Amino acid sequence: MGRGPSSAYLRESPVSDHGSNDTSAARLDWRPGRLEAFSDGVFAIAITLLVLDVAVQPGWEINPLGALLKLWPQYLAYIVSFATIGAVWIGHAGITHYLHHVDWIVVRINLLLLLAVSILPFPTRLLAEFLSHESGRRVAAIVLGLNLLLAVFLLSLLWRAALRRGLVHPDVDDEEVSLLTRRLTPGLAGYIAFILVGLFLPLVAVVGYLLVTLALLLPIRHRSAARPSTTDRN
Amino acid sequence: MGRGPSSAYLRESPVSDHGSNDTSAARLDWRPGRLEAFSDGVFAIAITLLVLDVAVQPGWEINPLGALLKLWPQYLAYIVSFATIGAVWIGHAGITHYLHHVDWIVVRINLLLLLAVSILPFPTRLLAEFLSHESGRRVAAIVLGLNLLLAVFLLSLLWRAALRRGLVHPDVDDEEVSLLTRRLTPGLAGYIAFILVGLFLPLVAVVGYLLVTLALLLPIRHRSAARPSTTDRN
Amino acid sequence: MGRGPSSAYLRESPVSDHGSNDTSAARLDWRPGRLEAFSDGVFAIAITLLVLDVAVQPGWEINPLGALLKLWPQYLAYIVSFATIGAVWIGHAGITHYLHHVDWIVVRINLLLLLAVSILPFPTRLLAEFLSHESGRRVAAIVLGLNLLLAVFLLSLLWRAALRRGLVHPDVDDEEVSLLTRRLTPGLAGYIAFILVGLFLPLVAVVGYLLVTLALLLPIRHRSAARPSTTDRN
Amino acid sequence: MGRGPSSAYLRESPVSDHGSNDTSAARLDWRPGRLEAFSDGVFAIAITLLVLDVAVQPGWEINPLGALLKLWPQYLAYIVSFATIGAVWIGHAGITHYLHHVDWIVVRINLLLLLAVSILPFPTRLLAEFLSHESGRRVAAIVLGLNLLLAVFLLSLLWRAALRRGLVHPDVDDEEVSLLTRRLTPGLAGYIAFILVGLFLPLVAVVGYLLVTLALLLPIRHRSAARPSTTDRN
Repeated sequence: MGRGPSSAYLRESPVSDHGSNDTSAARLDWRPGRLEAFSDGVFAIAITLLVLDVAVQPGWEINPLGALLKLWPQYLAYIVSFATIGAVWIGHAGITHYLHHVDWIVVRINLLLLLAVSILPFPTRLLAEFLSHESGRRVAAIVLGLNLLLAVFLLSLLWRAALRRGLVHPDVDDEEVSLLTRRLTPGLAGYIAFILVGLFLPLVAVVGYLLVTLALLLPIRHRSAARPSTTDRN
Repeated sequence: MGRGPSSAYLRESPVSDHGSNDTSAARLDWRPGRLEAFSDGVFAIAITLLVLDVAVQPGWEINPLGALLKLWPQYLAYIVSFATIGAVWIGHAGITHYLHHVDWIVVRINLLLLLAVSILPFPTRLLAEFLSHESGRRVAAIVLGLNLLLAVFLLSLLWRAALRRGLVHPDVDDEEVSLLTRRLTPGLAGYIAFILVGLFLPLVAVVGYLLVTLALLLPIRHRSAARPSTTDRN
Repeated sequence: MGRGPSSAYLRESPVSDHGSNDTSAARLDWRPGRLEAFSDGVFAIAITLLVLDVAVQPGWEINPLGALLKLWPQYLAYIVSFATIGAVWIGHAGITHYLHHVDWIVVRINLLLLLAVSILPFPTRLLAEFLSHESGRRVAAIVLGLNLLLAVFLLSLLWRAALRRGLVHPDVDDEEVSLLTRRLTPGLAGYIAFILVGLFLPLVAVVGYLLVTLALLLPIRHRSAARPSTTDRN
Repeated sequence: MGRGPSSAYLRESPVSDHGSNDTSAARLDWRPGRLEAFSDGVFAIAITLLVLDVAVQPGWEINPLGALLKLWPQYLAYIVSFATIGAVWIGHAGITHYLHHVDWIVVRINLLLLLAVSILPFPTRLLAEFLSHESGRRVAAIVLGLNLLLAVFLLSLLWRAALRRGLVHPDVDDEEVSLLTRRLTPGLAGYIAFILVGLFLPLVAVVGYLLVTLALLLPIRHRSAARPSTTDRN
């Protein structure tokens, strides 16, 4: 009675026993499954809708190949947004993989993250349209950068909220937690830096966003060192 | 033979034993899984398609930033519809989470709910288009409100039908059932009130819809009181 | 070696033991899960894309409410296609619910069914566009009818192929099999009849399609008789 | 500490024991489930978005049926792309079905594959638009062919990477592995051959792509020989 209306949707406190012995408690918590399914849907649609804005302009008949090559701003915008949604999806899967259950705060932060991801086709289209225009280019580069920053920030917030609220599976060791925490952070600084660059050099900023995203996607550092240590586990 | 054609799709009566001992009965019932997967798909697509209607108009070249700011009706419509689909999804996940299985009535009500959700991009676009027009604004605000009302009403109906037909998992205690029931109701009155407001002050109505939706999304009341009592459970 | 390339994707013969004791065989068969997930995605997207073609025409400013009412052909086309995809989804879920596993033929028939479902937004849009035109109306009504017929035919074929190839779970009793078989058939005759009507009275045909679909969706007959007999099972 | 940031997302080395006795290791690996769900979403959306570009041109009023028949380039492009995405989905499901878990390389290759699949609506639309134009036809046929080739190549790469990195379930026997390997290869040569044909005879090339795809989809060879040998297993 005193629990408030929210608990009818989602329990607000972490369950104390993480084993599934207490089947009643386990059933009444939200497993991450449904949140993953809905999020996967939004990620998959947003990443696939991007292609709708890649289209040749009227007048291509004069030079079809040239008309295709002239679309490079659209390809660039497409690649940046595709890579970012891909990176956010990988990060999201990495987070929910560690979660034992989700609570109402995490569900709401996740909804905000999906908002940031699903609106991304708009600044992507904006960049493709505005890139040939002097001041339009600047506006579009900054708007896109703010959107990318927001998505990565909310991803990071999702992880921190899950940690703070005790939703992470107890078997996950501290090292793995701190690795994921460190992994989610540097992108933020990178996007902020290139948004500032975008005030003066919008095209450089967009290429910068792509580099930051690729750095999130491709963990090149320490890779050779990584293998021996993972085998320790087995 | 006498069971009628519908039972070939879905059994019409609730199963008496909810344990999964009787594996034959358990297998022949519909678990909520497939219904959740299809619904998640529709929710995810509807919420992501909303962005397709956020677009700058021709003539932005004169003032790119101004062209972006002039899109505020589109942003407002986007936020209202995004938040509503998000709230309906959370409510839907809350309902199916408690269900032991689904029957043919629930599947049909769910299909109607998905109709109400998947058509939402249309009044959303309508509002963005009509908002600058005196009488158009009124029409669009009322149509959007009716659509939101329909979605939340069908969500509530889904829960009541599931309750009445004995589809809720027997371990769910009465308190949780009544909490979810109470939680799904107030939105209805809120939307009706603001639809009436929309007859005279359409823009106020739209902001009102957003407030009703945010009240559904953010359970602020009782939250501080909620925590101690949930710990009782553990 | 002699098994041919197809078996690398999907085993071609039904497994003899349907229990999951032989874990190796069970693992190497395709459970319906992945086929359901992909199909649910296509169903969900096709049913949600329909809304993109519901849009007011330029010139609505003169009479916004009238412009909305003038869209009735689009609403009608939307409802027919939405209801049909919904009915096909319910039928599809009914079929895969009974399947123990799927083989390569069923996966290919399913792909054809998804083709018929995912192309449906095209004749839907056609009907909405052509309905005000004398001979266009006839063409659109027949094309839509053929598409609906194809979808329901392929659904029926999917079930028959699954039956013939021994993919149905052995615990499903003959009565349930024959009920689902009978349930999937009458739609075919209904669509054919109304396609012929469409040659002369296109609008009547479209309303007819809707009635056939609603008959598939709403199992009104025998419903009162159904309840007692289903309780026999428990 | 020395494992590097990537391992916070995905373990980089294959787990040595594939049984699920070591529950801790099993939980910290990525099962293919989430990758399948996201990929299914992208496949389903890309295959369904293709229909958005099938539309009658203005001026259909003069001859509605003729306007429909004149759309044959759009139907052809639609069928080629639909069949290819279908074939890639079947191949993808065949691959992940054999995987015990996925690692970071496989997730990245999979993301590239999804890029190739989700961009396919663009060359599909291009072909439909350019087919009536002399040199445009050639450009469009080659671009489409390169996209199809890229998708099938990345699918093949995904399988080889999974094999090389020990991600395949140990119970899968060598014969099945080599069957799937051989099955994924011939498409590559076929697409390359028809891309070269496309330099001179673009329409022949497009029909050729369709034939290569259908050969991937329909395993006609050895089918009669396949049945006896599969029954050996039982």
